[in-house]
Amino acid sequence: MVVMRATTIHAERDIRLSEVPEPTIQEPTDAVISVSAGCICGSDLWNYRGENQINPGSTIGHECIGVVQEVGSQVTRVAPGDFVLVPFCHCDNTCPHCLAGVQSACTHLGFTVSGQAEYARVTQADGSLVVTDDDATLYPSLLALTDVMATGWHAAVAARVRPGGTAVVVGDGAVGLCGVLAASVMGAETIVAMSRHPDRQAIATSFGATHIVAERGKAGLEAVREITGGLGADAALECVGTDDAMGTAVRSARPGAMVGFVGVPHGVNLPVGQMFGRNVGLAGGMAPVRRYLPELLDLVLSGRINPGLVFDSTMALDQVADGYRAMDQREAVKVMLQP
Amino acid sequence: MVVMRATTIHAERDIRLSEVPEPTIQEPTDAVISVSAGCICGSDLWNYRGENQINPGSTIGHECIGVVQEVGSQVTRVAPGDFVLVPFCHCDNTCPHCLAGVQSACTHLGFTVSGQAEYARVTQADGSLVVTDDDATLYPSLLALTDVMATGWHAAVAARVRPGGTAVVVGDGAVGLCGVLAASVMGAETIVAMSRHPDRQAIATSFGATHIVAERGKAGLEAVREITGGLGADAALECVGTDDAMGTAVRSARPGAMVGFVGVPHGVNLPVGQMFGRNVGLAGGMAPVRRYLPELLDLVLSGRINPGLVFDSTMALDQVADGYRAMDQREAVKVMLQP
Repeated sequence: MVVMRATTIHAERDIRLSEVPEPTIQEPTDAVISVSAGCICGSDLWNYRGENQINPGSTIGHECIGVVQEVGSQVTRVAPGDFVLVPFCHCDNTCPHCLAGVQSACTHLGFTVSGQAEYARVTQADGSLVVTDDDATLYPSLLALTDVMATGWHAAVAARVRPGGTAVVVGDGAVGLCGVLAASVMGAETIVAMSRHPDRQAIATSFGATHIVAERGKAGLEAVREITGGLGADAALECVGTDDAMGTAVRSARPGAMVGFVGVPHGVNLPVGQMFGRNVGLAGGMAPVRRYLPELLDLVLSGRINPGLVFDSTMALDQVADGYRAMDQREAVKVMLQP
Repeated sequence: MVVMRATTIHAERDIRLSEVPEPTIQEPTDAVISVSAGCICGSDLWNYRGENQINPGSTIGHECIGVVQEVGSQVTRVAPGDFVLVPFCHCDNTCPHCLAGVQSACTHLGFTVSGQAEYARVTQADGSLVVTDDDATLYPSLLALTDVMATGWHAAVAARVRPGGTAVVVGDGAVGLCGVLAASVMGAETIVAMSRHPDRQAIATSFGATHIVAERGKAGLEAVREITGGLGADAALECVGTDDAMGTAVRSARPGAMVGFVGVPHGVNLPVGQMFGRNVGLAGGMAPVRRYLPELLDLVLSGRINPGLVFDSTMALDQVADGYRAMDQREAVKVMLQP
């Protein structure tokens, strides 16, 4: 058995670099990727903090870019040696749900499960992988496309951000910051980033936020109301997944507006009476990353967006436990890992 | 003090025809309407059944059409003698929320509170009222526009019913039936009406339902899945307001689809995990009736739609208690009342 170095989780706050079996081709539609860069996601912290159930010893990490190492017999669109973006959710890109733009509900849905490792298996290589040039200077931005940038984009799409409109973004993690960037690219004129952290506020501003609201609760809502001329926002992006964040998003949206939600819900109790009374809708969910990859890759390659700025820290793979600690304590926005 | 006959509610299942003060002009933007026809709404049954709090002796009824009797000094667009449709929610039709198409969140929002009576006050006459010819043969359809048809239409708009698509309608009350009619006008090719009552099934079919599903729960969902080729519906209309109905609507929608909800929520606990995992969105709420009135009136006057078919019973106003009883026991779909 060939082994590789991979990040594993064993208990709350117990992250290790371990030797585990190297992934292999299990289905003819698979590929194995040699990881050039992976990273830690805000959603990994749910596990790290023990708020999701932990399967002790399992690998963790769902974001990576790298070089195709091996492909299954039915794979025709990528070949060993190709540098590829690996959307965290794998899809065949041909089923009715994929054709409807909901690749995250693909009938052959799969996930990257060892993105913080030397190698990762992709279960639907032809449908999932997007080939581009291997340019190390672009790793941060390309890596961001495999989850957080596509997820922030999904929030903006679901919230129906429109040119000239107002948007409020709840959450200043990497996804929220990418939501700001998405709203900016989509032409929102007023973009409110709700953030209390100066370093994150700075990234939000560089991504196009026109206003920063540091207050929370009622004071935060009052601030959003004032910025939006007393109406509330034309679009609200919920990029956290907590009940507080959802409440803020729903209440900051103007009547008739949509909340785009992409934070994995943890204890969210949707305020249905509030939504009904004010005609505030909700859409979103797990991002159909593959749907957005071509468009987002163009934006990166043309220099129009630089979502890699969310990585304020890069570490070697064997420092992964430090990376989790830094993100847990909000010392880092997002940590890139290189094997 | 001038009195009128009006329906009042005193306790659970205690509906009376009483003498109450005739409404008067209280604000310069008001009008008083002499009611030609009113009706009982499914949502009135929440009160009738004691599931909403009752203010004993208060008038009830929010749907009516009639002749303008008197107007306030600032009213310029309607005059005494005009025959008008009275949207159940009154609006100025000029505030930012109205201009955005959310008249049900108007900054001057008001409601019809004595629609089952001889006279009713309209708080924003210029913004709310739509004048048309007084044609008694059209009363049922015109009356339907003041709430149920506009509400069913709102469900279909919120659910983004599209030409050639599939739609499922949960609820076979007047609103659900109007939702079927709306989906049909909007060009849905497959329209599933979930209904267990032969008389309502017949109306649904005449309104354009292509399939009837009488089963509920898992069996109902299975039936919808089979009709929609295993995918779920492109659009789901929730026209009841209970947790069961909402669960059915969310689960019958295909990934990426929207649930349009117009049933006033009573005990609804939105399945946020299910919505996130399958990217099923939710939009709707109290219908912006005034927004849809011109379009719907054209459809009625041109004979394209006949929503008045939801009235399977007409009674004199003094029979109103019988009308409530009949609707409560599902002996009637909807009862029209004539003073």
